[in-house]
Amino acid sequence: MNVLVPFDARDPKSRLEPVLDAEERLTYATVLLEHVLETVQKAGHDPMVLATDSISVAGSVIIDDRPLTPAVNDWLADRSDPVAIVMADLGLVTMTALETLFESQGDVVIAPGLAGGTNALVVRDPDFRVDYHGTSFLDHRQAAADIGASVTLSDSFRLAVDVDEPADLVEVLVHAEGPPAAWLREQGFELETDGQRPAVRRT
Amino acid sequence: MNVLVPFDARDPKSRLEPVLDAEERLTYATVLLEHVLETVQKAGHDPMVLATDSISVAGSVIIDDRPLTPAVNDWLADRSDPVAIVMADLGLVTMTALETLFESQGDVVIAPGLAGGTNALVVRDPDFRVDYHGTSFLDHRQAAADIGASVTLSDSFRLAVDVDEPADLVEVLVHAEGPPAAWLREQGFELETDGQRPAVRRT
Repeated sequence: MNVLVPFDARDPKSRLEPVLDAEERLTYATVLLEHVLETVQKAGHDPMVLATDSISVAGSVIIDDRPLTPAVNDWLADRSDPVAIVMADLGLVTMTALETLFESQGDVVIAPGLAGGTNALVVRDPDFRVDYHGTSFLDHRQAAADIGASVTLSDSFRLAVDVDEPADLVEVLVHAEGPPAAWLREQGFELETDGQRPAVRRT
Repeated sequence: MNVLVPFDARDPKSRLEPVLDAEERLTYATVLLEHVLETVQKAGHDPMVLATDSISVAGSVIIDDRPLTPAVNDWLADRSDPVAIVMADLGLVTMTALETLFESQGDVVIAPGLAGGTNALVVRDPDFRVDYHGTSFLDHRQAAADIGASVTLSDSFRLAVDVDEPADLVEVLVHAEGPPAAWLREQGFELETDGQRPAVRRT
């Protein structure tokens, strides 16, 4: 299955500004992207990056500088075979979580992200189009219903966490294995467990 | 399998204070508890509430006014059969998510909660004890390792979300079915999707 991984190459991970500078954010976004690509490959599928600008990453890259939704939809319009779209910032992604997703039956399979997002999609109906603006989980359910496509929900904590905000780094340090957690630790991030909820601190 | 559902009957859901008053918090905590109990029953198991004070709920209730960790551990000490401990505030819980959890093999099965928590546990090693203070997910993994118990991780978004803070109400309004979402809607809560991330507003 072709798996599209959209990537903002221009100002990625802007909500991590309180803890990482611009260069670090691009570096970490690339670490996360490469981890997602590698995990897609381990799950036996072919990842393809859809980037807003040229990037330095091993593998196939399509460059499209438009916003996420029209860029993904143009790619979808050219395809009739089942495809998947997986976000580039899933720091907790595992091969098992992706295999479960890809094997789920249904015209449209949605792995929700926190806060109403859509972190991964399998699309087996060629008429389905994405809309990542707003509460995309609800919009994608409606879009599938509108074209009579069946919807399956993939229930995965590891796919539900995307790395957007400093609080998400807690999830990475607690749960992630491999580069997404290792890079943070190399930059001096560690869990701070003094308070009611764990946080991250940088030393 | 006996399934223990601990419940703070005295000041539940205190972090929802910005959006619910004390009486509403107790009411909503009870709505969530009853939904969890009902879902455990639908999954074919026997729920037992461990409450800090007497409560009005259908079913078996043990009253123990000590903190969560010693109260749960005393209950565990009396048992040698496999048991489960499921948090009372899992607003997104489904029968399928619980069935998958309960069927997972392993001496200790952990369903992580957001922010390093432990939202559900299956305990098949009678020597295992809980520690809900701090980053309990990591502590429970270590506690299992210390007694040579195998650990299985249950990967579920629906079990990972507990209703602690106003932001968690977004997850309930987007994903929950039945009473946890219905009660919020009855109180005037709705999704506000104007900003970058959806929020809740009360009308």
